[in-house]
Amino acid sequence: MAVKSNNIKVIHHRLSNEDRWRRQDHQGGVLWLTGLPGSGKSTLAFELERRLFDTGHQVYAMDGDNLRYGLNSDLGFSPADRSENIRRVGEVAALYADAGLIAITAFISPYRADRQAARQAVGDRFHEVYLSASVEACEGRDPKGHYEKARAGEIPDFTGVSAPYEAPENPELVIDTGVVGIADCLDILVEYVNRAFRLDGG
Amino acid sequence: MAVKSNNIKVIHHRLSNEDRWRRQDHQGGVLWLTGLPGSGKSTLAFELERRLFDTGHQVYAMDGDNLRYGLNSDLGFSPADRSENIRRVGEVAALYADAGLIAITAFISPYRADRQAARQAVGDRFHEVYLSASVEACEGRDPKGHYEKARAGEIPDFTGVSAPYEAPENPELVIDTGVVGIADCLDILVEYVNRAFRLDGG
Repeated sequence: MAVKSNNIKVIHHRLSNEDRWRRQDHQGGVLWLTGLPGSGKSTLAFELERRLFDTGHQVYAMDGDNLRYGLNSDLGFSPADRSENIRRVGEVAALYADAGLIAITAFISPYRADRQAARQAVGDRFHEVYLSASVEACEGRDPKGHYEKARAGEIPDFTGVSAPYEAPENPELVIDTGVVGIADCLDILVEYVNRAFRLDGG
Repeated sequence: MAVKSNNIKVIHHRLSNEDRWRRQDHQGGVLWLTGLPGSGKSTLAFELERRLFDTGHQVYAMDGDNLRYGLNSDLGFSPADRSENIRRVGEVAALYADAGLIAITAFISPYRADRQAARQAVGDRFHEVYLSASVEACEGRDPKGHYEKARAGEIPDFTGVSAPYEAPENPELVIDTGVVGIADCLDILVEYVNRAFRLDGG
């Protein structure tokens, strides 16, 4: 999206990203979880947040339900509003990352273009994690009964049923949450974070 | 603003604000600087960020110039866009505060209603800091030459010249940056933060 306002310049912080990273002993960045409804995004995001916090990381997890009460309370579920929702999530995640945190986002984010825009907002330290559970696996659990309602036509444009999900083509990490249990998923994620956000690499 | 979307619920973090505060030894919250153009908001925000970081705080400063490249790149300078700009800043500051950080915001934010909305988004830990330098003092410095251009009619709706500034009625802190030097302002702010965001009070 083009910048509408002119006559703007960035005033720099008096401390660098590296200053922040050194103090906390890990880089900041974004772990962007994407996958079908019911693929485990929110559960894993908030469990991972706890695990990482307990091991000394600066971390914050957010999902659509949280943001829709605040920043995105002016947005509904039209295609344009959904896209703007994901754009803002990407920008907020970028702001968290700039403050040194590991931002974990848990949004279906079904469109490649929207995820690509988030990646561009964040830059190098964007890590796309595809929770690749199949529609069948997600629908088989359906703890909120959303798939059942979607099949009955009670929820329009439901991703995986009546709206498309564009699977990532080159995600940094893939976990088939339809097969791998939660504890193992968490171990995989923790191991990934410790490697990707370590001070001397990524 | 009313919440447009239905069928939303908040999934809770697996850690509390207090968990975060205890580890870092201070509360999170928002220090909302407001004042005329040239009153020293950005300078103080970024210097304070450095000072607080150096004394072990989790802190992030932001101003309009930063955000207009990213989150608010779709907004111009119409009255509606200015208001939406401040609304989003308040919501982002609230998200930072929820992650345990002290968010320092440096925006003219000339309207009481907009600042009040930010206060409501953040809740108890919102601290309004009024940098009360007069128009004369700010115009006398005018390092960017903005007042001169505004007087010449080259910048429309310039706060303090051709657009109103509604001074805070009950700010938590007032500093007359037209009289108090930068070093003393910083000392006052650091002292205030250490008191307001300490673990056992605020």
